[in-house]
Amino acid sequence: MPLVAVIGGGQLGRMLALAGIPLGLSFRFLDPSPEAPATEVGELLVGAYDDVEQLDRLAAGAEVVTYEFENVPVEAAERIGAVPSARALEASQDRLVEKRLFRRLGIPTPRIDDEVETFPAILKTRRLGYDGKGQRLVETRPGSDPGHVLEERVPFVRELSLLAVRGRDGETRFWPLVENVHEEGILRTSRAPAANAPQAEAEEYATRLLDELDYVGVLALELFDTGGSLLANEFAPRVHNTGHWTIEGSATSQFENHLRAVLGLPLGPTDSRPSFMVNLIGSAPPVERLLAIPGAHVHLYGKAPRPGRKLGHVTLVDAATEREGEVKALL
Amino acid sequence: MPLVAVIGGGQLGRMLALAGIPLGLSFRFLDPSPEAPATEVGELLVGAYDDVEQLDRLAAGAEVVTYEFENVPVEAAERIGAVPSARALEASQDRLVEKRLFRRLGIPTPRIDDEVETFPAILKTRRLGYDGKGQRLVETRPGSDPGHVLEERVPFVRELSLLAVRGRDGETRFWPLVENVHEEGILRTSRAPAANAPQAEAEEYATRLLDELDYVGVLALELFDTGGSLLANEFAPRVHNTGHWTIEGSATSQFENHLRAVLGLPLGPTDSRPSFMVNLIGSAPPVERLLAIPGAHVHLYGKAPRPGRKLGHVTLVDAATEREGEVKALL
Repeated sequence: MPLVAVIGGGQLGRMLALAGIPLGLSFRFLDPSPEAPATEVGELLVGAYDDVEQLDRLAAGAEVVTYEFENVPVEAAERIGAVPSARALEASQDRLVEKRLFRRLGIPTPRIDDEVETFPAILKTRRLGYDGKGQRLVETRPGSDPGHVLEERVPFVRELSLLAVRGRDGETRFWPLVENVHEEGILRTSRAPAANAPQAEAEEYATRLLDELDYVGVLALELFDTGGSLLANEFAPRVHNTGHWTIEGSATSQFENHLRAVLGLPLGPTDSRPSFMVNLIGSAPPVERLLAIPGAHVHLYGKAPRPGRKLGHVTLVDAATEREGEVKALL
Repeated sequence: MPLVAVIGGGQLGRMLALAGIPLGLSFRFLDPSPEAPATEVGELLVGAYDDVEQLDRLAAGAEVVTYEFENVPVEAAERIGAVPSARALEASQDRLVEKRLFRRLGIPTPRIDDEVETFPAILKTRRLGYDGKGQRLVETRPGSDPGHVLEERVPFVRELSLLAVRGRDGETRFWPLVENVHEEGILRTSRAPAANAPQAEAEEYATRLLDELDYVGVLALELFDTGGSLLANEFAPRVHNTGHWTIEGSATSQFENHLRAVLGLPLGPTDSRPSFMVNLIGSAPPVERLLAIPGAHVHLYGKAPRPGRKLGHVTLVDAATEREGEVKALL
């Protein structure tokens, strides 16, 4: 059985394996935690992401090495030839490099640094930010600081994301735009397709990015919809929380298409049905209450409850609106 | 994480785990083969099904014990309190006991033994028959033989199966009737829903059986459609090959609903979309050729090729007829 090696053994790794095992693949993960969610679905190597010995063990005999989060050390990814390439990883790890790349490709972004005219603005760490961490509002322009980037707050109407997949031959496919709601910086819900969404504009931006990076795999592009146009916020060179609904909602899930792409297999169709996903954050209702909601697809990651931690998600497909209310009422 | 113990570690066990891991379950299997397909998705205990020590290890700490094939020794299932109950197992293991049970419940069956009037007829072993094994045509009435049952050949129009699930509280749900085609005694294709099928009649028969056995879990009832009425052929007290299409084709798959039932969780809806499944038998085409067929959902079981062996299956949902042809052309 072809072996897929994954840097990171979180829920994304777990869901990659759940999509890949039916294709006859087996999985090996590297994660610092012996209780990583992926431990149920493959071999788990416990070690730091820069542990050279464990990285080499991870890659030994693997058909391909990929990763499931973007804060993998670039040197680690390079050492074992991870796909998507280290270049995509590098650009996504630094908010300033990322914004400059967007601009060079003609992809509009919020104003940054010297361009910022209105306050309060957002001061973001350039590196290692996620789920709203590493961000704070500032009332005045701070002193020069190479570790941060200042961003103007965009009066956006909604947050969207575009999931894309690009194969080794350059073929690119998109899922319908997703509308996302965050609470305290953490994704709470995703709805696809987003109503009246500028699909063509988003695909145009994503295509520029994917082609520039000669990207292989699934990529998520996060966008602000300002009502008249789109601004790129950031991208993730991996499967993404705003694409979890594709497991049940699409002809091919983001997880399966990521595997198809990195393995050089034909991409699957992305035809989708109307879907709604809710994250279970910090604590999860009893599973029997979730399963009592007709059509609720429950995904638990096997993680211990902790404030702000993503423990699972629930997806509804082609569902009546009251079902959404039933899920939310349990949170 | 609640642990589910499964007697048998074949592809059915593997697909049970793939459905159960997202619900936060973990799995342990008992199988005589160290290369059992379920080894990718749980702990595998290697041992015979009547190995008392291994059976006790299998059950230790498990929330529930279930099984994935019907030739489990009844004593083994009883010893560790397997669900569905040993009674269902027992009735399904003996073709004569099974037929008598059907009749007692007013469920019509083909003529057997002394009732047989036309030849050639089929002489079947009472026990351990599967995939057409243990059956042969006879031209005349054989001598009395307590190990076999003689069955009249039914001039059936088509073979159907009904997948049903019954919860611990007696709630019962059905998937739409499936039309099945066998080749050399082995299932080749399943189509759901079967066109113009007598759903109500089949559900009535299955309900009698499920209630009589106080059954918990998924059960498959195989039926001959003679054009005017249904005759029961046999039942399987487990998830079933003719229900594999439910993974993508139904709101809740047979695997997930089996787990929900045996764990006493609420059953999920069985709403289904038109689906077509093809078994990969003996050998499988290269995975990249299967994946090149738009919408083909590929399931490989990680088994070595061998004549007559089920290696995987492919499901199409809501698909154009030419897609079916593309799959068949690869076989």
